[in-house]
Amino acid sequence: MNYIGIDLGGTNIKGALVSAEGEILKEHSIPTRVDLGPEAVAERIGQVIAQLFDGECAVGGVGVGCPGTVDDASGIVRFAANLNFVNFDLRSALRAHTALPIHLGNDANAAALGEALFGCGRGAESTIVVTLGTGVGGGVVLGGKLLTGYTGAASEIGHMVIAENGEECTCGSRGCFEAYSSATALIRDTKRAMAAHPESLLHAVAAEHGGVDGRTAFLARERGDEAGTQVVEDYIEHLTCGLTNLVNIFFPEVLALSGGVANQGDALLLPLRERVRERSFGSRYAVSHTRIELCTLGYRAGVIGAAMLARE
Amino acid sequence: MNYIGIDLGGTNIKGALVSAEGEILKEHSIPTRVDLGPEAVAERIGQVIAQLFDGECAVGGVGVGCPGTVDDASGIVRFAANLNFVNFDLRSALRAHTALPIHLGNDANAAALGEALFGCGRGAESTIVVTLGTGVGGGVVLGGKLLTGYTGAASEIGHMVIAENGEECTCGSRGCFEAYSSATALIRDTKRAMAAHPESLLHAVAAEHGGVDGRTAFLARERGDEAGTQVVEDYIEHLTCGLTNLVNIFFPEVLALSGGVANQGDALLLPLRERVRERSFGSRYAVSHTRIELCTLGYRAGVIGAAMLARE
Repeated sequence: MNYIGIDLGGTNIKGALVSAEGEILKEHSIPTRVDLGPEAVAERIGQVIAQLFDGECAVGGVGVGCPGTVDDASGIVRFAANLNFVNFDLRSALRAHTALPIHLGNDANAAALGEALFGCGRGAESTIVVTLGTGVGGGVVLGGKLLTGYTGAASEIGHMVIAENGEECTCGSRGCFEAYSSATALIRDTKRAMAAHPESLLHAVAAEHGGVDGRTAFLARERGDEAGTQVVEDYIEHLTCGLTNLVNIFFPEVLALSGGVANQGDALLLPLRERVRERSFGSRYAVSHTRIELCTLGYRAGVIGAAMLARE
Repeated sequence: MNYIGIDLGGTNIKGALVSAEGEILKEHSIPTRVDLGPEAVAERIGQVIAQLFDGECAVGGVGVGCPGTVDDASGIVRFAANLNFVNFDLRSALRAHTALPIHLGNDANAAALGEALFGCGRGAESTIVVTLGTGVGGGVVLGGKLLTGYTGAASEIGHMVIAENGEECTCGSRGCFEAYSSATALIRDTKRAMAAHPESLLHAVAAEHGGVDGRTAFLARERGDEAGTQVVEDYIEHLTCGLTNLVNIFFPEVLALSGGVANQGDALLLPLRERVRERSFGSRYAVSHTRIELCTLGYRAGVIGAAMLARE
C-alpha cells in the first residue's frame, strides 16, 4: 500500500506519493497562496493530491503535516499563524477534493516521524528530533509512534524552560529552550557580541556574507576570534542543557538534530556528544547511551512523515 | 491472576499480593537490614514473597520496585545508594528464593504506575506523577505503560534543568527541578529567609514544631508572615515552571503530585492549576487540558505498581 504525504507550509504545498517502506514514488509541489484564504488553500492541497493519486496504484490515505496546533481527532487546525488558520476544519474542507482517509499532524512532528522511521532513527526504539531553525521544534517518536498527548497538541520541546526568568520567547514565556537554541537566538547573541566587541572579526565575517546569520559566529571562531568563540561556546552550552534534559526525561536511543544550525556538523556534534553524555543523570552506571546524530532526510522527512501519519 | 509487588526501601521491604485489578489481597513487611549486605537483602525479599505466596491462589509473577538505576532487561541494579547496591544482580539473587518470574523497576516509577492505573490516573490515557520529597522523582505512564527509555533507566524528571547555572543539585549538576521543588529545597529556602529576616514569624513557627520542615513557610504564610509568604510564592513559581515544562513536553491527561509537600493540598493545587494552564504552550487553542491532581494511593502505590510490573 502507498500513502500520500502533504507538507503544508506558508510558502509551498509539497506532496509525495510514498510507499509503506518510506520510498518516494512521485512528487508534486505548488505555491500555497495563503493570501487566497483557507478554503482556497484546501482546494490547492486537493490539486496536489489529484496529481499524485493517478489511480495506477492503491493509496491507503492522505497525511497532512501542518504548522501550528493541529487536532487530528476533530480534523481541525486550531491555530496556524503563517497560514491564517484559526479553528479551520481542514479535514472537512479536504473532503470536497478527495475520498481518501485524511490524517492531520503537526508539520514538525510529521518530519520527526519520517526521520525516526526512515532516516537517522531507522531501527531505533525511540527517536527525538530537535529542529534548530527560526524556532526550536521537533517531535518525539516512541516505539514508532508520535507522542502527541491528551490535548491533541504536539509535544512542544522548544517551550521547555531551561532558564527561569531568562530571555524572552516568542510564546510569551521567558527562558524557553527556543529562546537560547534557535537560529534566531544565535543571531541575537551574535549581534550582541558585535555591539560589545567592535574589534571582533564578527563584523568582517558578517560583511563578507551579506549580514549576520547562524553561521557568523562559527566562521569567526574558525578564524580564532575571541568574541565569536564565546558566542559559539555559550550556544553549545545552552543546547547541551536542553538536550540533556531530553535525555534525562526520555532516555531515547537517538537524539537527532536538524534545521539550519545543524549544518555546522561536527563543530556542533562533537562537543554535544561529549557534554550531554557527561551530564546525563545515571550515565555513569548506564550500559547503553543515547546517540546524538544529524537528520538525514532533509525536506523529504516532511512529506515521508506526513504520509506515515496516514499509515498509522 | 494475582501478582506480588515488593517495594524495596532502605528501611523496610514492603510486600503485597495484588489482584490484576489492583486490589491488595494480603500484605507483609519486614525491615530491610541493609547492613547485612545485598545477598541477605535478597534473601529477606524471598521471605516476604514466601509469606505472600501461600499457594491458595495463582500468582503470575513478582515485581520489585527498587531505588536507583535498575535494568530490568539484565536483572541488575546498577546503582542504589541507600541499599549499597552497585551492579548487583538482584534477579539472579532472588532466583534462589522463588521460581516465579521476576520483574524489576525503579521504585518511583513503580509507584507512578500504581497511581496511573488504579489511583488518580485511573482511566486516563496518560499520567505523570511528580513526587515532592527529599528529591523530586516520579514517573511517566503513557497508554498504561511506563516510559523507561532505551537505556533501561527511569525517566529522571527531577533532573530536568529549569535554571541554567542555578542552585546546586545532589546529582552534580546545577539548576535541576529537584534543586527548587523538593522538600529539601523548600527547607533550604525557608532557612535562608529566616537568616535574612530575624523578625519573621518563621522562627516562632519552627520553634513550635521542633524545627524547620516543609510546612514551616506554609504555616507562617497562614499567619500573614511576609517572609514566609515570599518563600511559598517562590516555591510555587519554581514548581509551576517544572510542571509547565512537563505539560509542554507530554501534554498528559493527568499530572499528579505526591510526597510530603503535596500534603499542602489546595494551598498548592489551586495556584498551580491556574498558573500551569496559563503558561502552557497552545493552551489558548487547546480543547482539552491536563488535570493537576493529588495522588490517592499513598504508600500502597509502591506495592501495587510493583505488582503491575509483573503483570506487563
